[in-house]
Amino acid sequence: MTTYLEQLETPVPIVDLDRLAFNLDRMAAYATLHGLQLRPHVKTHKSPRIAAEQLRRGAVGLTCATLREAEVMAEVCDDLLVAYPPVGAARLERLARLPQQVNVTVAVDDAQALDALNVAARLGRRQFEVLVEVDLGMHRVGVSSPERAVAIAQHIERASALHFAGLMFYPGHIREAVDDQAEALATLGSDLATFVHALTAVGLPPKRVSGGSTPAAWRMHEVPAVNEVRPGTYVYNDRTTALIGACEWDECALTVLATVVSVAVPGQAVIDAGTKALGREPLRAASDGQEPGYGALLDHPEVVVTRMSEEHGILDLSKTSWRPRLGDQVRVVPNHVCIVVHLFDEIIGVRGHAVETRWPVTARGRGPALGELADGPSRPRAV
Amino acid sequence: MTTYLEQLETPVPIVDLDRLAFNLDRMAAYATLHGLQLRPHVKTHKSPRIAAEQLRRGAVGLTCATLREAEVMAEVCDDLLVAYPPVGAARLERLARLPQQVNVTVAVDDAQALDALNVAARLGRRQFEVLVEVDLGMHRVGVSSPERAVAIAQHIERASALHFAGLMFYPGHIREAVDDQAEALATLGSDLATFVHALTAVGLPPKRVSGGSTPAAWRMHEVPAVNEVRPGTYVYNDRTTALIGACEWDECALTVLATVVSVAVPGQAVIDAGTKALGREPLRAASDGQEPGYGALLDHPEVVVTRMSEEHGILDLSKTSWRPRLGDQVRVVPNHVCIVVHLFDEIIGVRGHAVETRWPVTARGRGPALGELADGPSRPRAV
Repeated sequence: MTTYLEQLETPVPIVDLDRLAFNLDRMAAYATLHGLQLRPHVKTHKSPRIAAEQLRRGAVGLTCATLREAEVMAEVCDDLLVAYPPVGAARLERLARLPQQVNVTVAVDDAQALDALNVAARLGRRQFEVLVEVDLGMHRVGVSSPERAVAIAQHIERASALHFAGLMFYPGHIREAVDDQAEALATLGSDLATFVHALTAVGLPPKRVSGGSTPAAWRMHEVPAVNEVRPGTYVYNDRTTALIGACEWDECALTVLATVVSVAVPGQAVIDAGTKALGREPLRAASDGQEPGYGALLDHPEVVVTRMSEEHGILDLSKTSWRPRLGDQVRVVPNHVCIVVHLFDEIIGVRGHAVETRWPVTARGRGPALGELADGPSRPRAV
Repeated sequence: MTTYLEQLETPVPIVDLDRLAFNLDRMAAYATLHGLQLRPHVKTHKSPRIAAEQLRRGAVGLTCATLREAEVMAEVCDDLLVAYPPVGAARLERLARLPQQVNVTVAVDDAQALDALNVAARLGRRQFEVLVEVDLGMHRVGVSSPERAVAIAQHIERASALHFAGLMFYPGHIREAVDDQAEALATLGSDLATFVHALTAVGLPPKRVSGGSTPAAWRMHEVPAVNEVRPGTYVYNDRTTALIGACEWDECALTVLATVVSVAVPGQAVIDAGTKALGREPLRAASDGQEPGYGALLDHPEVVVTRMSEEHGILDLSKTSWRPRLGDQVRVVPNHVCIVVHLFDEIIGVRGHAVETRWPVTARGRGPALGELADGPSRPRAV
């Protein structure tokens, strides 16, 4: 018996499966067209099922941030990049214990961290590929001088269980410079070139140069030297992605289904999706005179979630003639989808108004997944 | 063998058990002193274990927002207030199916919602107590006129399975008016009186008048008519609570233990607690010239998390002589603790630097708990 959207309990994240497939196909085609290796970041979906769809469409491997993500994805992929500093005993131990058949690359920006990583690799009887993380303007992690990058690359080459594999950067700052994206990309390209030249000059030309994120992904082919991209958000997209022009509004595949629970206060309606369902992420894009808020309705983009409590979202009705009734369902396009996925245990896949499938957000949380997946009742089918 | 903080994997929420006990005792003593019924909101801890401690100290019952919270708390408490509009088929069905021995009160602000609630009560062969939710300045939910409150109370009395029990309000707006708290409370008191008088005039004097939240809780006895308070945050407290003066800094019982994972960019340190561990909640208090940011270090309150990505928090080191090294652990006091608890599956209880206990955040998530708790292996011991 088919279940329809109207029967679902809210708040709940739902994914339009046709839009998801379109988004997966589009990024795969872009990477193929420009000869870029596609290594999607799984932080957006945290699901081995979606990861398998990415790999089936030609992704060369996956990118992870947490060790739980890496452990879960090791079930479906044998080439993982852990794009997070390998610092802390537990993180190192879990890296070392990833299944032996998985080729693991780690991004590093510190020589001391390298020594610990080398010890962990030897204890785990394995080798790690290492990318030197460089800072090209995001100012979060990464070394900012070519000299420092060279010193770390040479340090890697001296470590018995590590191999220098290339450079990694995260151009997250470029999304916020929409008007100047071309100029920002040009600057990034010339900065990157100084790193590549410095490494080449000492006999360590970077084999892999890994960049990209969804907002900048569609133009990464314009940056010389880049040969790998790591977009995450593109599978689902979100309000920020749409408003900076990196996707169309109807390519937003994930929405939060919510119910109108109060219309008592004039000029607004209250839905049951608040901070604990939508997150409180800023809109990182121009909002065309709208309140930026925390999300907008898929079917009424002029209606914005302007205020929230933990379990309440306030819809501002001042810019719409639409008048919701108590009990009506709405679909909210969140500002930042990666946070929404992290707030739920399960995703519901729909086609039109019919529920087709449900899948767990397997890599949500922090705990070890290896034992759980191997022994527990929740081991997923190989996809 | 004792486990110490230094051995824990980060990021992870840790609770100082001595501070927790102090906070529980203090609020219980306040309520007793002023003859107020204490009905703590469980949204902050989502744990039957902490709820049992609240009840043991004299709480008359518990307040819940989600139905999962109510189902979990029904295991330890037979008097629950569901302080959330009972709208939507699934929510009504779960309300009706709460264990028969539990006395359930529901807050309502709409006559149409009442009719549905009455049908649900009859299907569940039970009665609901009903509080009329009134809006005293928060402008979120609730009726704003005494006439409307009277009409809804009379509607309740006509419904065969519902009993009018009194009034409820949420003074969440008062936290942001720190300087004018006395005046805001006085206004609130006189507004509330008009509702009480209107109901009394038609022969429906409200037996219960339920208000309060942690920021305003310590002064709720100054508001005539209020006889019940529903604070949540006080068990753990947070940076906002401390900076508005509703607790001391060293009464913040929950911190997020994090590890310094990068010091590559000058003037800052990066920790492994970002938006997915701390939330992105604003500081709702004056920050004394500090960047408001998203949290501050317990042991270095001048060090603020000024920027975040999903798994990175940036500590601004410009106002401190403290210089962290790679791998150092820090304890972050978050701006809003209720959001942090919702982001994790487990809490670690510590005394000093020693880990003493761990407990699951049982009521996190949305799914039904009744079957799970009754049949599954995770049924908690009766406390």
